[in-house]
Amino acid sequence: MSAQNADIYASEIHPKHRYEPLRVNGLEVPQTAIDLDDSPTGPNEPVKIYRTRGPYAEPEVGLPALRSEWIQERGDVEEYEGRKRNLLDDGTRAAKRGAASEEWRGEKRAPLRAKQGQRVTQMAYARRGEVTREMEFVALRENCDVEKVRAAVASGRAIIPNNVNHPESEPMIIGNQFLTKINANIGNSAVTSSIREEVDKLRWATRWGADTVMDLSTGNDIHTTREWILRNSPVPIGTVPIYQALEKVGGVAEDLTWEIFRDTVIEQAEQGVDYMTVHAGVRLPFVPLTSKRVTGIVSRGGSIMAGWCLAHHKESFLYENFDELCEIFAAYDVAFSLGDGLRPGSIADANDTAQFAELKTIGELCKRAWDYDVQVMIEGPGHVPLNKIQINNEKEEEWCGGAPFYTLGPLVTDIAPGYDHITSAIGAANIAAGGTAMLCYVTPKEHLGLPNKDDVKTGVITYKLAAHAADVAKGHPGAHEWDDAMSKARFEFRWHDQFALSLDPDTAQAYHDETLPAEPAKTAHFCSMCGPKFCSMRISQDIRDEFGDKMAADLGLPSIGQPEDAAHADADVLAAVEAGMDEKSAEFLERGGQIYLEDDASVQHS
Amino acid sequence: MSAQNADIYASEIHPKHRYEPLRVNGLEVPQTAIDLDDSPTGPNEPVKIYRTRGPYAEPEVGLPALRSEWIQERGDVEEYEGRKRNLLDDGTRAAKRGAASEEWRGEKRAPLRAKQGQRVTQMAYARRGEVTREMEFVALRENCDVEKVRAAVASGRAIIPNNVNHPESEPMIIGNQFLTKINANIGNSAVTSSIREEVDKLRWATRWGADTVMDLSTGNDIHTTREWILRNSPVPIGTVPIYQALEKVGGVAEDLTWEIFRDTVIEQAEQGVDYMTVHAGVRLPFVPLTSKRVTGIVSRGGSIMAGWCLAHHKESFLYENFDELCEIFAAYDVAFSLGDGLRPGSIADANDTAQFAELKTIGELCKRAWDYDVQVMIEGPGHVPLNKIQINNEKEEEWCGGAPFYTLGPLVTDIAPGYDHITSAIGAANIAAGGTAMLCYVTPKEHLGLPNKDDVKTGVITYKLAAHAADVAKGHPGAHEWDDAMSKARFEFRWHDQFALSLDPDTAQAYHDETLPAEPAKTAHFCSMCGPKFCSMRISQDIRDEFGDKMAADLGLPSIGQPEDAAHADADVLAAVEAGMDEKSAEFLERGGQIYLEDDASVQHS
Repeated sequence: MSAQNADIYASEIHPKHRYEPLRVNGLEVPQTAIDLDDSPTGPNEPVKIYRTRGPYAEPEVGLPALRSEWIQERGDVEEYEGRKRNLLDDGTRAAKRGAASEEWRGEKRAPLRAKQGQRVTQMAYARRGEVTREMEFVALRENCDVEKVRAAVASGRAIIPNNVNHPESEPMIIGNQFLTKINANIGNSAVTSSIREEVDKLRWATRWGADTVMDLSTGNDIHTTREWILRNSPVPIGTVPIYQALEKVGGVAEDLTWEIFRDTVIEQAEQGVDYMTVHAGVRLPFVPLTSKRVTGIVSRGGSIMAGWCLAHHKESFLYENFDELCEIFAAYDVAFSLGDGLRPGSIADANDTAQFAELKTIGELCKRAWDYDVQVMIEGPGHVPLNKIQINNEKEEEWCGGAPFYTLGPLVTDIAPGYDHITSAIGAANIAAGGTAMLCYVTPKEHLGLPNKDDVKTGVITYKLAAHAADVAKGHPGAHEWDDAMSKARFEFRWHDQFALSLDPDTAQAYHDETLPAEPAKTAHFCSMCGPKFCSMRISQDIRDEFGDKMAADLGLPSIGQPEDAAHADADVLAAVEAGMDEKSAEFLERGGQIYLEDDASVQHS
Repeated sequence: MSAQNADIYASEIHPKHRYEPLRVNGLEVPQTAIDLDDSPTGPNEPVKIYRTRGPYAEPEVGLPALRSEWIQERGDVEEYEGRKRNLLDDGTRAAKRGAASEEWRGEKRAPLRAKQGQRVTQMAYARRGEVTREMEFVALRENCDVEKVRAAVASGRAIIPNNVNHPESEPMIIGNQFLTKINANIGNSAVTSSIREEVDKLRWATRWGADTVMDLSTGNDIHTTREWILRNSPVPIGTVPIYQALEKVGGVAEDLTWEIFRDTVIEQAEQGVDYMTVHAGVRLPFVPLTSKRVTGIVSRGGSIMAGWCLAHHKESFLYENFDELCEIFAAYDVAFSLGDGLRPGSIADANDTAQFAELKTIGELCKRAWDYDVQVMIEGPGHVPLNKIQINNEKEEEWCGGAPFYTLGPLVTDIAPGYDHITSAIGAANIAAGGTAMLCYVTPKEHLGLPNKDDVKTGVITYKLAAHAADVAKGHPGAHEWDDAMSKARFEFRWHDQFALSLDPDTAQAYHDETLPAEPAKTAHFCSMCGPKFCSMRISQDIRDEFGDKMAADLGLPSIGQPEDAAHADADVLAAVEAGMDEKSAEFLERGGQIYLEDDASVQHS
């Protein structure tokens, strides 16, 4: 990792962004410092934000193996030959052609797995009281004590998805005591897209702030696309292995078998997939519960499994073989993302029996996975009206022992296709404020088509703002400082700082420049909303210059609204208003002129 | 209103939209019927939606005076000469030039006002027990009993903003027992835009669903721009008269006087402005409360008044002359929108003493206005983190006697300029679900520049979806039917119906066509997400075909998730899952095969 590369990456977001890693105990934990201009009252500290260092390597080379040493040092994994590569892994076209489309050109490593009798999961280490390098890394990123990280992972309340075969990833944690994370889905389909497009989407999603990426490819070259993605991904990669398994049987759900699924899981685990969605909660008896729904089963994985159960009149092979799956996951540190195959596909179906029956089952499976020290998150809806969101958090907490909840939106109305990044961001901010740990993004193309690069960016930024809004609402330490730095820059007309502090500096600046393009407008003390003649911000500055702190003190009112006590209790404010305000006002009015005149004489207009 | 014109208007949104007014008792209440294709199981009823009939006249001619007869029939208004037109009403340029820029070319009516001793407000009529044509119109639009409308207006819990000089408007109601409304702001500034652009924005905003429009012009030709807007507006028009008053004194706040403000209010009332924002709660003693804020006073009106109070060391002339203002408003039926001049401009300043001191004062003024039978709404924030939103509804309800709350967003984070339509839609959906009656839209250009036509549309659609999400969450009668029709169309791959049912059919169809442009794709039973080979919706259909209702009944589980009982109690579902599921599952598994085989023999695959 040369400084030069880091600079290139950092400068790509905004010229005021600087790569300033935390260097502690041999670790280099990525962080972005945003340099700010001076205020009239003095200099401003840079704002430091959590940021994936991100992709800066040549795609054909891949990222350096940051975690290789840490994994080897623990002495509990071994190299092995690995599963034999099968051209059908890349679909029928590759098999016919006799070659994969664009075989991975970078370093090829032999796969690792746990030595006999070992469990190499972060949960296993945490439960034994061991603090791993990954946990240290995460604690620095989250600006918290490492014991908080270890305890959360040990209890199952947080996961660090880190397959031993994906050493390129920068460790990150998912749990509701930590910053709310977001996932971006990419992946080709039978209809469109290429390997390079998908790698490009990965880099693009990560650049704008995706914390994990799921590769949901269902088209050709699935294996090879995933290899390129993993070797270039600084964030954990998730998959839904049943998608690939289905391709291997020509798309016919009833032809699926446990053996094909198991083989696919091992194939993906050897490549380094960090978490896998498994719809083991879609049990045979739940299938008929969906028959009267408005939108039936909308999860692809859920409907594949329902289709299989129906065709065979048998209990799900995922449910039946769950323990063996746990053993495999424990050998690579693959985390479960227990899929909500029966999630509602419309607000009409929200919180129905099918959905909750599955959630309860998933909770039972979660605890079985924990018996194998396998890390687990729980997937959640989907489409849920605002008034039915919080009970999802509550039941997940109750039934799934507090395992991290990972929800798709939810969308709070169905009538706005083309705007479902927004309908779902409303649900996402709410469910995250109520305890959900990670949010799966939704792009404007949801329900309509496959997202392009612009849609991926819009989805990521929309979910970053929803996640941050939740962190602020939860009072997460440090969350509101970013907002306050922005607000201060806004008040002082530091336009370049406002752009730099934006989740999307390019768009903020482009919108500003549409109305007032010239450079002087970026230092002018007005904006296009009010124009140069009158400006409310300027009057506020005049008030501040006039009164300073003295007047508020004279009024006997609490000094509030400062950055340092933005989380002040509403109760105090309301009490002040309700009890004292009228008297204070009258009193002030009586002697107001005088106080003001005193001030007037003493204040220097600066 | 020729049928031809109506067709032109209706067909502009989507070919499946049809103007189908409710014709009752001589009234023609606009409504859009959306025609749907047949389901495999039979035909679908058209979905009927609330819709402003909208602008269909030539801009130079204006709309017909729908309400003139109703107003005249009451016999309590009289024509009069009106205030003398002053070229300075259009700003200094017009005064220099000696002429307004593009004088209104349509019909010029003499202004109306109440006869001596009369109060011509909807509230006055409602309190006397009179049901006006406006109330009848509103009750038909809202699909409710007219007595509900009358009672809500009489109690102050709802308003029908209907200046007697704006007879072109289609009556609508704002109150939290009715559909949540949205407002779009338009208006020129000193920096940009023309009269025609503003009329165009009005028509555009109304077309996409704005329920009211505020003309916030601060540039040249203010009077004439407003005239064009009013004569073309089918929705109530709101203004902030202090903006124009400030222009009349060359932009110097301290030069404002009560007389200039009063004259401006009369000027605008004679033109037909339906509601006016008045920042009468910005009292002198509250000004110093803002001095320690991160973003001071961000409301233009608020800072103008604070600037005036500061300069004169005097109590606000709006506060001091509030009773006279009420008398004027009562003579034209102008409604107050009591402005939150001290609203927070950052989440750091949310819910602080200044904000709540003003809100309490506004509540007192509201009750004074009610003494004059003047209709009132209460403006609210602004910037508020998610966890501090609901207390705003509660305090507004408590202090302002339940007058309709009208909020700007609120934005739930400050770090996403360029996306503030989204940060604010999150807050807006929440505050509306909690009791706010009307939402003032925010466009993507908020904090950055003036919105163009695209931004206006994005803002309106974003707020329509937020308002609708709130209506669904509140269980508003009829709200979820629209969602359910969409979901059913989605499940059955009725693509044209999905576009027609979208808030923005054009965007939905454009996004779909990007991936699958050909016409057959719109009738194909798959989409680009999964491709033709596998489709989860199809498997769901298979399940439905297999099981019908029988299986769910066999399991002894509640039949839920149907459109007709989408609002089913969560408690029932949870009880079913928690108590019965395990036993039922086991029982079913035991005899499942048999049941299934029976079904299998009897079900005809259709």
